Amino acid sequence: MKKLIEKEIKSEQKYKGTLIEVTRDTVELPDGKTSGRDVVKHPGAVAVVAVTEDNELILVHQFRKPVNEVTLEIPAGLLRPGEAGGETAKRELEEETGYRAAKVEKVFEGYTSPGYSNEVLRFYWATDLQMMAQHTDEDEFVEVELIDLEACVDMLHAGKIKDNKTMIGIMIAQMRSAAA
Amino acid sequence: MKKLIEKEIKSEQKYKGTLIEVTRDTVELPDGKTSGRDVVKHPGAVAVVAVTEDNELILVHQFRKPVNEVTLEIPAGLLRPGEAGGETAKRELEEETGYRAAKVEKVFEGYTSPGYSNEVLRFYWATDLQMMAQHTDEDEFVEVELIDLEACVDMLHAGKIKDNKTMIGIMIAQMRSAAA
Repeated sequence: MKKLIEKEIKSEQKYKGTLIEVTRDTVELPDGKTSGRDVVKHPGAVAVVAVTEDNELILVHQFRKPVNEVTLEIPAGLLRPGEAGGETAKRELEEETGYRAAKVEKVFEGYTSPGYSNEVLRFYWATDLQMMAQHTDEDEFVEVELIDLEACVDMLHAGKIKDNKTMIGIMIAQMRSAAA
Repeated sequence: MKKLIEKEIKSEQKYKGTLIEVTRDTVELPDGKTSGRDVVKHPGAVAVVAVTEDNELILVHQFRKPVNEVTLEIPAGLLRPGEAGGETAKRELEEETGYRAAKVEKVFEGYTSPGYSNEVLRFYWATDLQMMAQHTDEDEFVEVELIDLEACVDMLHAGKIKDNKTMIGIMIAQMRSAAA
């Protein structure tokens, strides 16, 4: 696949925010021509798949400014520098939902949109859950909802899940529940 | 869920590239405090799930500058203004892979990363395939690979699929093939 590779000629920072950095990169294409690429740099994140003893998937409702709506998603959060994803997964699950997981296991990871962003999302399967208290970040407002896993699968097939990581989370919950 | 909503106080454009626009938004939180949000505006895209008569999923290898690697993905492409997603799906599939689909059907759509981007990805199921010629855009270099659907499922479970839309694509192919 070497002949597909683009060589970076230059990379100019265009924006640095609190969450993302944006660069405009100039690349040499495989045929020797040049082209430009918009690139978003993101710290990476974790998403947590947690199913209760009653076979309910733990979900959160949260307002998302970029899409101007309250979404239904599996719990997720940003990686902090130097933090192992497992700790992030445990912390975010407990902060957002009040559930503490004694055990988390990385399932796999994937790019959310590699055409313009380097964001990698690591998926964790959380087990041995215990209900504690929700304690979100200062600027974070979420509401927890538990939905029966079979109902989640039906919602997925019916197009009622509007968040890609949550689609994958439901698939993981199915895989893991079937294996248990 | 009304009490979760953030009210926009202002939105400042920070970058406008060829693909994305970036704004820094100031919002009023549900508790009356203010906070800032980095927001990426994206035109939206389609992803195409196409399985050949031999039960092979059509995939493409492509260099992705943001992640600096050649990825394995289902075919995908940007929506053009005013274009119905079905036409985009047919066009991108044929351009990138050479396969013409007589029929495409929207399965569902989802946000790729609603915490910072408004990108919506529409998933299409393409059928009645006919092999034509590949004819990519001028700055686009892709290699087609057909992989047996069962092998794709094994790759997914083994963590060898590194692109979220492709994970969802494999799930759709499973759903649709089982239903057929």
